[in-house]
Amino acid sequence: MKTIVLKFGGTSVGTIDRIKKICKIIAFYKKKRNRVLVVSSAMSGVTNDLVNKSKLISNNFDIAEYDVLVSTGEQVSCALIAGRLKHDGFKSRSWTSWQLPISTEGPHAGARISSVRVKELNNYIKKGGIPIITGFQGINNKLRITTIGRSGSDATAIMLAKFIKADECIIYTDVDGVYTTDPRDYKKARKIKKIFYDEMLEMASLGSKVMQPTSVQDAKLNNIDIKVKSSFISRSGTLITGSKKSFSNQIITGISSTKNDAKITIVGVKDKPGIAASIFRPLSKNLINVDMVVQNISQNGKETDLTFTIKADDLKKTEKLIKKNKSISYKKISFDKNVSKVSIIGVGMITAPGITYRMFQALASKKINILVISTSEIKISVLVSAKNVKKAVAVLHKEFKLD
Amino acid sequence: MKTIVLKFGGTSVGTIDRIKKICKIIAFYKKKRNRVLVVSSAMSGVTNDLVNKSKLISNNFDIAEYDVLVSTGEQVSCALIAGRLKHDGFKSRSWTSWQLPISTEGPHAGARISSVRVKELNNYIKKGGIPIITGFQGINNKLRITTIGRSGSDATAIMLAKFIKADECIIYTDVDGVYTTDPRDYKKARKIKKIFYDEMLEMASLGSKVMQPTSVQDAKLNNIDIKVKSSFISRSGTLITGSKKSFSNQIITGISSTKNDAKITIVGVKDKPGIAASIFRPLSKNLINVDMVVQNISQNGKETDLTFTIKADDLKKTEKLIKKNKSISYKKISFDKNVSKVSIIGVGMITAPGITYRMFQALASKKINILVISTSEIKISVLVSAKNVKKAVAVLHKEFKLD
Repeated sequence: MKTIVLKFGGTSVGTIDRIKKICKIIAFYKKKRNRVLVVSSAMSGVTNDLVNKSKLISNNFDIAEYDVLVSTGEQVSCALIAGRLKHDGFKSRSWTSWQLPISTEGPHAGARISSVRVKELNNYIKKGGIPIITGFQGINNKLRITTIGRSGSDATAIMLAKFIKADECIIYTDVDGVYTTDPRDYKKARKIKKIFYDEMLEMASLGSKVMQPTSVQDAKLNNIDIKVKSSFISRSGTLITGSKKSFSNQIITGISSTKNDAKITIVGVKDKPGIAASIFRPLSKNLINVDMVVQNISQNGKETDLTFTIKADDLKKTEKLIKKNKSISYKKISFDKNVSKVSIIGVGMITAPGITYRMFQALASKKINILVISTSEIKISVLVSAKNVKKAVAVLHKEFKLD
Repeated sequence: MKTIVLKFGGTSVGTIDRIKKICKIIAFYKKKRNRVLVVSSAMSGVTNDLVNKSKLISNNFDIAEYDVLVSTGEQVSCALIAGRLKHDGFKSRSWTSWQLPISTEGPHAGARISSVRVKELNNYIKKGGIPIITGFQGINNKLRITTIGRSGSDATAIMLAKFIKADECIIYTDVDGVYTTDPRDYKKARKIKKIFYDEMLEMASLGSKVMQPTSVQDAKLNNIDIKVKSSFISRSGTLITGSKKSFSNQIITGISSTKNDAKITIVGVKDKPGIAASIFRPLSKNLINVDMVVQNISQNGKETDLTFTIKADDLKKTEKLIKKNKSISYKKISFDKNVSKVSIIGVGMITAPGITYRMFQALASKKINILVISTSEIKISVLVSAKNVKKAVAVLHKEFKLD
């Protein structure tokens, strides 16, 4: 007998019909004599509607009341799921986060789950009941409602799996797993059967929208295996794990690419300690996210060239901030708003030599110019002209045998 | 310094604009240096929408989950009100029923409030804060969410006023008070300035839709004065009270009338103990509400004629139930589905003799035939042909100086 946590995302419970359908998925696991617990998001659209209401009330809506407001969405979907399971003849009931409770720390709208009291849930699942638990929310030590930020329902499922000591944690969503690269951009993309947490973290932060990086981090820290599956079509999904069992000897697991990046190069910056901080401080204050950064020390050791990338949307603001920054001096500044980052990701590259060479060689074979290079232990990223992105993904996908 | 409980109904908080408007009403009381507490219903339409969702999930939706589901409506409106008051510069926050808690007894969807813990609220209002409290709901001793039934937010306001020892309890709604008779049917209807609980109970159960009888009963039992006002127009409302102070010497306070009643007469029923119960038992089981009942014992003492009224919608079902009722025998049965009940209500009639005569005389002067008569201490009701209702209300309104 396994204990399984099933989590359903907003589109999976987006309509009354969808709720009826996912109750059949829940029934499937229950009928196999498992102990089943369910975590649900709000019906898709509901949270956005509530957020819009708050914006109409105030352009500076109180953050504690925001949590009171948006947390109602999951309460609705959980009541409907439990009601449907009872209709279908199962023992089921909803639990709100204060009823367990799910305790959180940290600020409103960005809280983190510190503990989940599972005593009542344990008694209930032992008696064959299916508890339906509100995702995305908890209470703080003042008994006020908190939310975990967007996609926080994944975090709820992972922390519940941890505290209930679940054997499996399955995240049902509207995609059927993690792909070697975005299937919309490259037809030969394949679904990945197994991916390491660290690889998934790189994939997630690079643009794969399957799971939020914080949730993957939660899973990694608590060593919870996660399976991502589609609630719309019945197919095997992707396992996100830290276990090395039955991994293929694939070196590269996936390739990701960004859209709408921009590159800024500042030439001839007077080099002194703290100069990079002086450049980036005003950007950080204005919530402009700097991604790749490359610094070349000049030959005379007194000047340096600094290149970095940002989202193209932030380009005008960034240009303005740099030009009015009195704490730096430089010779020239140039901008390129038609660049994209292409990354290859794989734990296998730690032990396999020559991956960098193979990557550059493959790009060169298609005459793709590399603008900036940045590497980590399990990832190599290159900046290329936006017009070369598709070509780059295709040649790398083939080179690393992902086709 | 007064402590005032303000309650806002669904239409009063029905849109974002309405919420902004009622926050101005709240501000008005607060700026007069009162201690102000707010109870809110769900935004109008929201509860119905949730109920519809539950019906689409199951034609027999679990009643405990129903309470989890519909109780979200007040949480939304309270968060929005608190958010708006903060936007307007006031100290304010929402309290859900479990946060206080508001403790209830009795079944789901029909619970009654047994206590309201006001300690936190007291501290908060002493510091100048405006607490916004979810109406219509509470928790039971198993920490499950309960609801109080439709219009339960009035009950929340009344019980809160009791436990917080409020000086005033003001119910804001979409009508501006209680009228001598329905203003839509009779142009000369006047707003009543003060009405006794018992009169209001008779008015409410006879069809005035201002307040639910159970809420009036709550107010009476706990001796809480209630003022009913409109949140749409600024006018003095109606005070519902038990206090005799400054009441005029009006004998009749109001006149109510029903629509769509039906009369059933069973002639020549064999008279034996329990015969009325035998007739009404199957009706009660089928949730058919019997209103006026008149029994005439026959001269020989062995047979009786029984007349009673029901809602016209229930007539066919009632006819069927009586005809297949094997435990009774009778000579003849007749039906009339075009009848209405007209009632005059007033505590004054206890001490003023001759009211019955004046009522019958007035009706006779307009050649209105009385079909059935029923009286209580503060009410006289007559059944008349439906076509005579307007005429009856008009002549009685004039006779008792309500014009």
